[in-house]
Amino acid sequence: MDKRFVYADNAATTKISEDVLNAMMPWLKDGYGNPSSIYAKGREAAAAVGKAREQVAAAIGADAREVFFTSGGSEADNWAIKGTVISLKKKGKNHVVSSKFEHHAALHTLKKESLDLSLCEVNENGVVRTEDIAALIREDTALVTVMYANNEIGTIQPIAEIGAVCRKKGVLFHTDAVQAMGNVPIDVVRQNIDMMALSGHKLHAPKGVGALYIKKGMKLPNLIDGGAQEHGHRAGTENVAGIVGFGKAMEIAAKNIGERAAKVGAMRDKLIAGLLELPRTRLNGDAKLRLPGNVNISFEGIEGESLLLMLDMNGIAASSGSACTSGSLDPSHVLLSIGLPHEVAHGSLRLSINEETTDEDIEYMLKTITAAVLKLRNMSPLWESIVSGDDKKTAKARQNLV
Amino acid sequence: MDKRFVYADNAATTKISEDVLNAMMPWLKDGYGNPSSIYAKGREAAAAVGKAREQVAAAIGADAREVFFTSGGSEADNWAIKGTVISLKKKGKNHVVSSKFEHHAALHTLKKESLDLSLCEVNENGVVRTEDIAALIREDTALVTVMYANNEIGTIQPIAEIGAVCRKKGVLFHTDAVQAMGNVPIDVVRQNIDMMALSGHKLHAPKGVGALYIKKGMKLPNLIDGGAQEHGHRAGTENVAGIVGFGKAMEIAAKNIGERAAKVGAMRDKLIAGLLELPRTRLNGDAKLRLPGNVNISFEGIEGESLLLMLDMNGIAASSGSACTSGSLDPSHVLLSIGLPHEVAHGSLRLSINEETTDEDIEYMLKTITAAVLKLRNMSPLWESIVSGDDKKTAKARQNLV
Repeated sequence: MDKRFVYADNAATTKISEDVLNAMMPWLKDGYGNPSSIYAKGREAAAAVGKAREQVAAAIGADAREVFFTSGGSEADNWAIKGTVISLKKKGKNHVVSSKFEHHAALHTLKKESLDLSLCEVNENGVVRTEDIAALIREDTALVTVMYANNEIGTIQPIAEIGAVCRKKGVLFHTDAVQAMGNVPIDVVRQNIDMMALSGHKLHAPKGVGALYIKKGMKLPNLIDGGAQEHGHRAGTENVAGIVGFGKAMEIAAKNIGERAAKVGAMRDKLIAGLLELPRTRLNGDAKLRLPGNVNISFEGIEGESLLLMLDMNGIAASSGSACTSGSLDPSHVLLSIGLPHEVAHGSLRLSINEETTDEDIEYMLKTITAAVLKLRNMSPLWESIVSGDDKKTAKARQNLV
Repeated sequence: MDKRFVYADNAATTKISEDVLNAMMPWLKDGYGNPSSIYAKGREAAAAVGKAREQVAAAIGADAREVFFTSGGSEADNWAIKGTVISLKKKGKNHVVSSKFEHHAALHTLKKESLDLSLCEVNENGVVRTEDIAALIREDTALVTVMYANNEIGTIQPIAEIGAVCRKKGVLFHTDAVQAMGNVPIDVVRQNIDMMALSGHKLHAPKGVGALYIKKGMKLPNLIDGGAQEHGHRAGTENVAGIVGFGKAMEIAAKNIGERAAKVGAMRDKLIAGLLELPRTRLNGDAKLRLPGNVNISFEGIEGESLLLMLDMNGIAASSGSACTSGSLDPSHVLLSIGLPHEVAHGSLRLSINEETTDEDIEYMLKTITAAVLKLRNMSPLWESIVSGDDKKTAKARQNLV
């Protein structure tokens, strides 16, 4: 099989789709008006932003007045968390419930605020249990924030159930749906979601745009004050082209979710099954409650970064943890949260495929990754010690049998 | 003269230049890697962001490590102000000095924080005096923030002088240079600037990108926490295409400032002189200490919004106050700060031209605006009362002479 380029890091970012780029281009060229201006060029830009707001709202079952554009998912998470904390501290509520494997945009923000923070355990399959969340909620709980789908292991959380518990207990519920959107059907009303963070560049829109859904009636202090943009809730001249692209991408993402998930999920399962044929290899995260495009595998006896570099040389773009934590030598907090030992967490690979991935790409990845893992293990003293440990165990086991 | 389209609202936003859009396009197409990813596509994106950081730094006399990309000027102002306030409140410093005519991104942010706030008076020419700022600085002053050039009346402030005073008194100095950049030479070191907000879309880069300059050694708490982007100081996947465009635009903006200012300034002066030929008309803001492209004129007896609509019908895109405050019926706080009565402030027009404006555009504007003002005054009861007041005064003056 010839060498090819396979982009298998769609959880880190995606290519802007042709439809999205076509929708954006007029606003990068002659449609440069400021949406706050009252002349035609400004009104046209304002109408385009309004249309995108409707598209985003429709994709998540919200009203357009509940959608506020931001510069991305991290800003949206920061806004939801910091805003809620400011507003509820005044009422003496200083306790927040979250989980151990949240995205850093939530986790670092929560840890920085001077909060009473309860981080819910994640089970070995990478799922937060609703009853565990419920048990952590107290009288002074201001907020529950649990991500919709984990960015590293792709596990999908029981959001509707957690939402119901929060509603019943009168606690605000925020979810980061950056990875989930477009992969699972989302309905903020039915799922009792009060705030939800979205990002454009994870679903074929450009980087630098996202949104925070804020349920009608909530009063959330601003993160960015100033001009009257976003109904006075988020200052700054609107990123018109980015917003238009995001609107278009959300419209597309909300369509044919089931069909896309079936197609991508079948490729994912083939990839997982093929990689698990290697010895001392495990799938991280539940096999079923999982984003259709996510594969996260640990290979004992190898170092994830070496594997990535070898795959890069062979045209495969993949990651170990999330893109946002690369450059750090710490093992993934997500993999530790599901009980992986440090050394196993270090030998992990995340492949995130999508509807543009082909069967040939899957075959190429299987062949290339298998060869790379075998090669790295052959060179690895760690692998040698694991295998010789096996030999000893086997020998010991034999002795015991004798 | 035939009807034409004249865009005279460059202070609200500008068209993306061809050079900038060409620089961006590869990053909207195949260069979609996440700069945090370690494979080739990611490294290329990181290198592009790094190059843009060098371009921005070079344009303001900073080191690349002092430049942090944001979603725009408002975020940069919010970050500078909120961050400084958080960090200095802990040291018992809770006093901030600013001016009465700051952009809302600064003014609303300052007013929202529970601060001891001193707002310096602006003189009738729209200039803040350094000695007035100096007189307001106290032992517990945490920050001085004064904009570099006003967004409505275009007056340029004595930034280097204020910077020197702040440095001498050991007080942090932030300036919003969103309108100034590209129009006046900026050197953050020579001018003793500690923090400075910049925006892309005011200088032919796209909307949704800007930067905060933070002087080396300063510890500014983050506004947006999460991933390790921007050296851990501003989380969120980088808006690669926007950042690349912004870098290119900054590089262009810093070149030939004098030449451009001379050309644009001459057109501006022609426009001002022509409009001042109308009776009961005044230029707002100093005629010399003024951005080369800014014209801000009050016409007594008319209502600014009606004038704008009439100009729009004739193909002229202009504004009354700033784009960020449109939709509000309050008169401009900037015009009130320089002593204009409410009714005069309401009849104001801001034209902001640039190097793409032609002599024909100037002639067309002069002719069209003059005709529109005359027409509106003819229909205006307010104008009638002003003029009949004049008649009475003239009659009275005559009597006194007899």
